[in-house]
Amino acid sequence: MTTILGIDPGLAGTGYGVIQAKGSKISYVTHGTISTQPTLGSGKRLQKIHFEICEIIRQYAPVVAGIENLYFAKNITSAFPVAQARGVALLAFAQSNIDIREFPPQEIKQAITGNGRAEKHQVQELVRFLLSLDEIPRPDHAADALATAICCYHSVSAETLIHMATGKRP
Amino acid sequence: MTTILGIDPGLAGTGYGVIQAKGSKISYVTHGTISTQPTLGSGKRLQKIHFEICEIIRQYAPVVAGIENLYFAKNITSAFPVAQARGVALLAFAQSNIDIREFPPQEIKQAITGNGRAEKHQVQELVRFLLSLDEIPRPDHAADALATAICCYHSVSAETLIHMATGKRP
Repeated sequence: MTTILGIDPGLAGTGYGVIQAKGSKISYVTHGTISTQPTLGSGKRLQKIHFEICEIIRQYAPVVAGIENLYFAKNITSAFPVAQARGVALLAFAQSNIDIREFPPQEIKQAITGNGRAEKHQVQELVRFLLSLDEIPRPDHAADALATAICCYHSVSAETLIHMATGKRP
Repeated sequence: MTTILGIDPGLAGTGYGVIQAKGSKISYVTHGTISTQPTLGSGKRLQKIHFEICEIIRQYAPVVAGIENLYFAKNITSAFPVAQARGVALLAFAQSNIDIREFPPQEIKQAITGNGRAEKHQVQELVRFLLSLDEIPRPDHAADALATAICCYHSVSAETLIHMATGKRP
């Protein structure tokens, strides 16, 4: 059984999703959002995000973590806070020696739906189906994080996962 | 005596500069660059930046830290790694309960030279002059970090500095 963490970073809300993989079967573990208030100030908001990601890692012990790549942005002003949140997420992974996988948004959509240009609701519906959930995970950040975790599973071969699970966390 | 840290974030090179303020007099303490190699991977590079900033904070015990604001970018692709490095710098400040001051680039130039549109070499020459250094600090990242620390000094009134020095670090 290998645990995989997906993170969808954001300053106001960072989504997380945890799945487990056993051979070719994946199953849902948990999902949620780390929310921060603007009144905290950017430093303390990033501290909360980092702290809670570290807590999730401590609790679920993932061996691999997936996160979306940021290469382009429609809105630059809103992309910077996302990049800062992404920075502390990558830091949390590195501090725990978790294998880090970064994916362009298209690759995540492709892995879930078979179409790199799928609509958000199509991705969410397939996340629900693939993880045998009764409802689409909410909010969007958390559904995106679960999609990233599933993409991460696909990107790592079963052999590699077994190797990491036995090599890193006996 | 109040210690002020300036950080100029970057993934390949994060500049740092430390100054001390006593009343209306500022003096140079140290400057340098935290360098990371691309072969490390983004997570481990951010971990190195975070770790070394934490070490600088531990060694020099600044009560206030200044960092440039990122609102606009000429090159978006190169701005994202900077924002991620900025994120772990802000995290290090917050984890140490340091007062954080963020400045637009123009405000830093204005504080040093009196001209918000000053050229880089003008800023560097005045940093050298204001800190009574024999030469312009190198590399550019470190000179920018010292400029940010001086701007930080100007932004905080003497009374506030005294209050922070006595209130936070007895």
